[in-house]
Amino acid sequence: MTNTDSAPLKRSHSTPLRLGIAGLGTVGIGVIRLLRAHTALITQRTGRSLEIVAVSARNRQRDRGEDLSAFRWHEDPLSLASDPDVDVVVELIGGANNPARKLVTTALENGKAVVTANKALIALHGAHLAQLSAEHNAPLYYEAAVAGVVPAVKVVREALAGDQLTQLGGIMNGTCNFILSEMEETGRAFGDVLKEAQEKGFAEADPSTDVDGWDTAHKLAILTGIAFQPIDFESLDVRGIRGVTSPDIAYTKELGYRIKLLGVAHRTKDGGVDASVQPCLVPLNSGLAQVGGAFNALTTVGAFSGAVTLSGQGAGEGPTATAVMADLIDLGRGHHLPLWGQQPPEKAALCVPSDTVEGAYYLRLSLADNVTEESINALLDEHKIPLKHASLRKEANGSLHFVCVTHPVLAGTLHSTLYALGRHESLSTAPLALKIEAMP
Amino acid sequence: MTNTDSAPLKRSHSTPLRLGIAGLGTVGIGVIRLLRAHTALITQRTGRSLEIVAVSARNRQRDRGEDLSAFRWHEDPLSLASDPDVDVVVELIGGANNPARKLVTTALENGKAVVTANKALIALHGAHLAQLSAEHNAPLYYEAAVAGVVPAVKVVREALAGDQLTQLGGIMNGTCNFILSEMEETGRAFGDVLKEAQEKGFAEADPSTDVDGWDTAHKLAILTGIAFQPIDFESLDVRGIRGVTSPDIAYTKELGYRIKLLGVAHRTKDGGVDASVQPCLVPLNSGLAQVGGAFNALTTVGAFSGAVTLSGQGAGEGPTATAVMADLIDLGRGHHLPLWGQQPPEKAALCVPSDTVEGAYYLRLSLADNVTEESINALLDEHKIPLKHASLRKEANGSLHFVCVTHPVLAGTLHSTLYALGRHESLSTAPLALKIEAMP
Repeated sequence: MTNTDSAPLKRSHSTPLRLGIAGLGTVGIGVIRLLRAHTALITQRTGRSLEIVAVSARNRQRDRGEDLSAFRWHEDPLSLASDPDVDVVVELIGGANNPARKLVTTALENGKAVVTANKALIALHGAHLAQLSAEHNAPLYYEAAVAGVVPAVKVVREALAGDQLTQLGGIMNGTCNFILSEMEETGRAFGDVLKEAQEKGFAEADPSTDVDGWDTAHKLAILTGIAFQPIDFESLDVRGIRGVTSPDIAYTKELGYRIKLLGVAHRTKDGGVDASVQPCLVPLNSGLAQVGGAFNALTTVGAFSGAVTLSGQGAGEGPTATAVMADLIDLGRGHHLPLWGQQPPEKAALCVPSDTVEGAYYLRLSLADNVTEESINALLDEHKIPLKHASLRKEANGSLHFVCVTHPVLAGTLHSTLYALGRHESLSTAPLALKIEAMP
Repeated sequence: MTNTDSAPLKRSHSTPLRLGIAGLGTVGIGVIRLLRAHTALITQRTGRSLEIVAVSARNRQRDRGEDLSAFRWHEDPLSLASDPDVDVVVELIGGANNPARKLVTTALENGKAVVTANKALIALHGAHLAQLSAEHNAPLYYEAAVAGVVPAVKVVREALAGDQLTQLGGIMNGTCNFILSEMEETGRAFGDVLKEAQEKGFAEADPSTDVDGWDTAHKLAILTGIAFQPIDFESLDVRGIRGVTSPDIAYTKELGYRIKLLGVAHRTKDGGVDASVQPCLVPLNSGLAQVGGAFNALTTVGAFSGAVTLSGQGAGEGPTATAVMADLIDLGRGHHLPLWGQQPPEKAALCVPSDTVEGAYYLRLSLADNVTEESINALLDEHKIPLKHASLRKEANGSLHFVCVTHPVLAGTLHSTLYALGRHESLSTAPLALKIEAMP
C-alpha cells in the first residue's frame, strides 16, 4: 500500500511481546488470570503472543492464588526497568511517588514501553512523563488509570479525536457513588456508611483520596489533558462528599434531584479550561442519576459528536485487568500514541479560577433555635444570593433547616457567603452548597 | 525501543494522507465540514495532515453548501479507486451492491485503504472483504457503519479485545426508536407516526430497511463478527416493529416494561452464536429504556469486563462524520487492524436456529366477539404455553385483548403456536409476541 505508514495486516510476529509486572495486588493478579484464561484469543487478536516473563512484589511468600513460579522474580521493582528480557513494564504499584514514579521514568529512559493503572502518577507528573516518552520513543499507556473498564482514554484520544469537545465529565469514583447510594437507600449517615464500606473493603482505611474527591480529580485531570489541554493539577477545584447529610439527600430528592460526586470540565470560549470536582445535583431522570454502586459513567459533548456516554465498572479485578490488557494488545499490535494524543505543550495550563464560574445551587442552612425564615432571607439578600425558591424544614429530631435553590450565581459570591454564614450565630452547623449540574 | 514494533511517537510525517470521498450526501459533506472546522487540531492529533484531493457524486451541479472547487471531480466513483493521488477511498455511497461494492473491492485490490459507513456491505460481504483486505495489506475501516458516533467497533475490537464477551446488544436504529417513543408519548398508531417520520425526513420513503429490522441486523452481524465470529447474515433471525400497536405499548408499560427494537447476540456454551433482532420488552428502570429518539445504545457483557454500555447519536451529519474521521485519524496514525480484528476464518458460521432458544414473552391476542378467557386459556394450554399471569382487557372502541406473560418457553414452540392461533376463529387479528429481554 502506498503512503499510509502501514503496520502490516498479515501479521504473525514471530517474537512474543514480553511483559514485566510490578505489583501483584488485585489488578496484577487479574492481568495474569485474564491472560491465562484467554491466551489463544489474545494471541490471535494481537497478532503475536503476550508473555509474562518477570514480576515484582513486596512479599514473595504470600499465596495469591496463581502459580507464579514460571516468572523471574525481582525483589526490587526498579530492576524490571533494566531487565533486558522485558519489552513492556506493567506498573501496578500505584501512587504518584517512588517506587512507582522511579520505575516508570527509568523504564521510559531505557526505551521500554510502559502500561500503568496509576492515575495519580499521570495526573501529577503527566507533563514530564509525556516529554520522556516522546524523547525515548517509548509509549506510555494508561487506560486502566481512568474509570476501570470504561474505555475513557481510548474513546477521547481516538474515537472522538476528530472533534473539539466542549465538555466532559461524570461519575468516576465508585466508593463515593456507593456511599451516596447507600445513604439514599438506607437513610443512614455518611460516617456510618463509610465505616461499613471500610469494613467490607470498598473503601480504604484512609478514605481521603476517595471521599475528598482526589481520586476523581486525578481522572478528570487526565481526561482534560487529552480532550482540551494538560492542566496544572494544583489549579483544579476539588471538593468531596463529607458535608452531605441524610436530610440533604431527602430534600434534593423531593426537588427532583440525586446527589452524585461529579468531575466536570468545560472548554471556555477563549480556549481555557474550567474544571472542578464536587458533589452535584443531577436530575432524577438523567442518565447519571441511574448510575449506581461501583459503576462509573463518563459523558462527552462536542459540536459535531453531540453527547456520548460510556459506563461500566470503575474498579475491581476483571474490569481493570481488561483495561490493562487493552493497552497491551494495542502495543502488541504496534499502535503507539503520544501520552496526550499529540505532542505535549511546553507547559501545563492553569484552570480558570472556579470563583468566576456561574451556576445554580442547592443550599441548606441548619438553623440555631429561634431563628426565623425572614432573618435568613434577609441575610442571603444582604449577600446578594438570588433565590428561586426556599422552604423551612423541621426534622423529627427538632433540627431546623432552611433549604433553597438559587438562581445562577458566581461561585465566588456563593463561597464567600458560605464562609461568612459559617461564622454566623443564626446557623447551628456549617452550611452546605451543592451545584445543580445539567449534563446531557 | 526494543521489540515493540514501533510507529514512532515523535511523528511529523511530511506527506499528507490524501483522501478521495465517494458520495456527497449528509455524511460526505459532514466529513468535509469537520475537517475544515478542525484542520489544525486533526493534523496535530494525527501527526500528519489529512487532505481531501478528490470527490465523486452523482450530481455535480447541486449546491451542497460547501466549496468543492479545490477537489478533483470524478464523474465515475470507480475511478477514485485508481486515482494515484488518493491514499484512502472514503466510501459514503451506501448499499451492499455496486457501485459501492465495486468501488471498495477495486480500491482494496489496488492497495488503497478504505473507510466506509456502509453497514450492509460489511454485513453481507464482510468475509470476502476481510480476505481482500488481508491479501492486499489494505486496511478497511468502518466505525461509522455501526451506531453513528457510538464507538462500538473500536470498543469491541480494541478496548475489550482482551476479554471473551458472552453477550452484546442494544438499540441500533434511531428510526424505530423514534417511532416507538412517539407512539408511547402520543398514543398514536404505528402507521400515523411512520408517515410523520417520513414527512420529516427521519424515515425513508421505503421504510423496510429500518422498521423491518434489517438495518439493526446489519449492525448486529458486524459486531457479532468482531466479538464472537463472522456469521452468515442469512442465518440471523430478524423481526421488525410493524406488529406493535398502541394498546401493546400501554399494556407493557403497566407491566413495568418499555418496547424497544433490540439486536442481541449471545455466545453459546459450545462457542456458537445465538443472535436475533426483534422488538423486546425492557424493564422501565433499565438503562436501555431511557434511550430515547435518535440515540443508540450498546451493552456488552464479559466474564472479566462485566457490563459496559455506550450511547450516543446513531445517525446525522456531525455524529457520523466524527466516526468517519476517527477511522481516518487511526489510518493517519498508522494504526491498522484486520477487518474482524484478527485473521478471518475460512468461512462464516451459521447462527444457532432461533427456535431452540428459550425466553419469556409478552403475548397479546385480539379476541373475536364472545370468546371467553377460559377458551383462550385452554387453547394456550393445549399448545403448552406456560403462563405466568394473564388478564382480559377491553379497549374504549370495544376491542377485547387477552394479555399475558409466559414463563420461559422455546421460541419454536411459541412461534408455531402463534402461527396456529393466527388462523384460529377466536382471534380477530394476528397475535403478537414480544420477548422479555433482561440485558444488564
